[in-house]
Order: sequence, then structure tokens, then C-alpha cells
Amino acid sequence: MAREHILKCLEAARLAPSACNSQPWKFIVVDERTKLIQISDAAVGLGMNKFTVQVPVLVAVVQESMNLEAKAGAVVKNKDYSMMDLGMAVENFCLQAAELGLGTCIMGWFDEKKVKEVLGVPRSRRVQLLIALGHPDAPTRSKVRKSLEEMSSWNEY
Amino acid sequence: MAREHILKCLEAARLAPSACNSQPWKFIVVDERTKLIQISDAAVGLGMNKFTVQVPVLVAVVQESMNLEAKAGAVVKNKDYSMMDLGMAVENFCLQAAELGLGTCIMGWFDEKKVKEVLGVPRSRRVQLLIALGHPDAPTRSKVRKSLEEMSSWNEY
Repeated sequence: MAREHILKCLEAARLAPSACNSQPWKFIVVDERTKLIQISDAAVGLGMNKFTVQVPVLVAVVQESMNLEAKAGAVVKNKDYSMMDLGMAVENFCLQAAELGLGTCIMGWFDEKKVKEVLGVPRSRRVQLLIALGHPDAPTRSKVRKSLEEMSSWNEY
Repeated sequence: MAREHILKCLEAARLAPSACNSQPWKFIVVDERTKLIQISDAAVGLGMNKFTVQVPVLVAVVQESMNLEAKAGAVVKNKDYSMMDLGMAVENFCLQAAELGLGTCIMGWFDEKKVKEVLGVPRSRRVQLLIALGHPDAPTRSKVRKSLEEMSSWNEY
């Protein structure tokens, strides 16, 4: 896959908003054959994510420390802003990929310990998500979602 | 503000991905004058978010229960997917707003108890974010972000 396309996706993630502009993320792009196989192995568990053996790129999303302001806010308000922030950055990455005609799959189920070993991620860090990035061979499935009435309301719960 | 525009933003949020398609969110749109003032009051604390008194729409984002699959995954993998999911849905909402020429501000700092009272949100639920939605009177500020080199790497941490 052209690195130019991957760089555009990274740029979209880079610009994502985050609590107190903390940007608590690091995206490790894996496109080297040997490591790709190892990370793919870590994602294929319990019969899931088998398609990962075919993808040209896997991205490990590392949760980094929040800055002090965001940490303080998270404690005072009892909110895990850091995970929200990761969600926003990852969504930007995937939307940019779609815009480029690429396909993504966000995975939360993988052997995190193995991924950290292969990529040399410090013990203190978590790899919260893997993103598969590739050229889809079929159109996106139509989405099954709650209705608008179920997921929204006006002026009261 | 035209409800047609708000509905487009809600639709973008509705289609967001989530762990095990759990969709653990509810968006409460506040555009009724009296409630708008009350929610705005709850957002103006410690001198922050003063602009909210002027916005035509505030949206309270409620964290709903995950489905059983997502809950199990979250426990087994020790990951708060639910907050990631909210982040993705909120990002979709805000990107759709930008596409429509509208402006948003995502706020995590507000009097959650008051917001819940005003909107009749059940005690068991959390209002994790407020989104201000309006017509910007100035171009978006240029973004201050970590460099690409700092937020990403290739094949190793």
C-alpha cells in the first residue's frame, strides 16, 4: 500500500480533538512482512479476525499518558477522557481511509502482550486497538443500528 | 437552527461503529429556550464555557449500557470500550456538523448532576459530554498538535 495513503490517515488522526488537547495516542503502522505476520497471529484468536492474515497494513493504537490538565479533569469528574480521545482519533483515521477508497476494521480482541513484545511497546503502555487497513474486495455491508428514535431525543431523556 | 441539520448530525452519530455493535449512547438535543438556559448554566463553571449562553443547541451525550458481548469483552480484556464508542459517535456528529458549515465544541467540564436533573436522565446513567452546536462567527483556529513523528512510528514503538 502507498505510504502516501497511510500518511493521510495518520494526519487525520493527528488532528483529532482530545480533552485538554492531551493527544494521548501513538499509532504504530506495521507494514513490514515479518512483523505483519506476527501481529496478525496475535489478532487471530478463537477463530476471529482471520482476514488479518491478508491485510497489507495493521496499525497498533497505543494509549499514551494524558497531560496533567486532562488527568486532573479525569479524576475530578471521574471520566476516562483518554479512551474517548482514542476513539475520536481512530474514527478520524478510518473515515479518511474510507475517503481514499480503503477499508478498515477496528479490533479490540487480540493478544495484547504479544503485540507489545513484537513492537517493543513499554510495559507501562496499553495497546487498546488494532486497525486493519486494506483494499476491500466487497462493498461495505449495510449497517445494523438502533433507530434514530432509540438513540436520540429532544429536550428530555 | 434547522432541525434538518441537527438530524443529519444525529444520523452520522447513529452510524458510528462500536464494540460488538453495542451503540452505548443516547444523544439528547436541547433547543428549547428554557432548558437551553438551564443546561448552559450547568456548563458555565469556574469561568469556562461562557460562550454556551449564546448557542442555539446543546447536546447531552448519555452513556448507555453496553450489550452483553461488549461487557464481557471489556471485562476480559480490561478495556473501557464504551468510552471509545462514545468518542467515535461524537466525532462523527461533529464532523458532519463541520461539513454543514456549523461549529461544535465538545465539553467534558459541566455540572453533571444538574444536567441530569434538567433532562430527566436516570440516576444510573452518566452524561459524559456536552456538545455545543452553532453558527461560528470566526474561522476555526489553526490546530496545535504533536508532530507526525511524535504521534506515529513504523514497525516499532
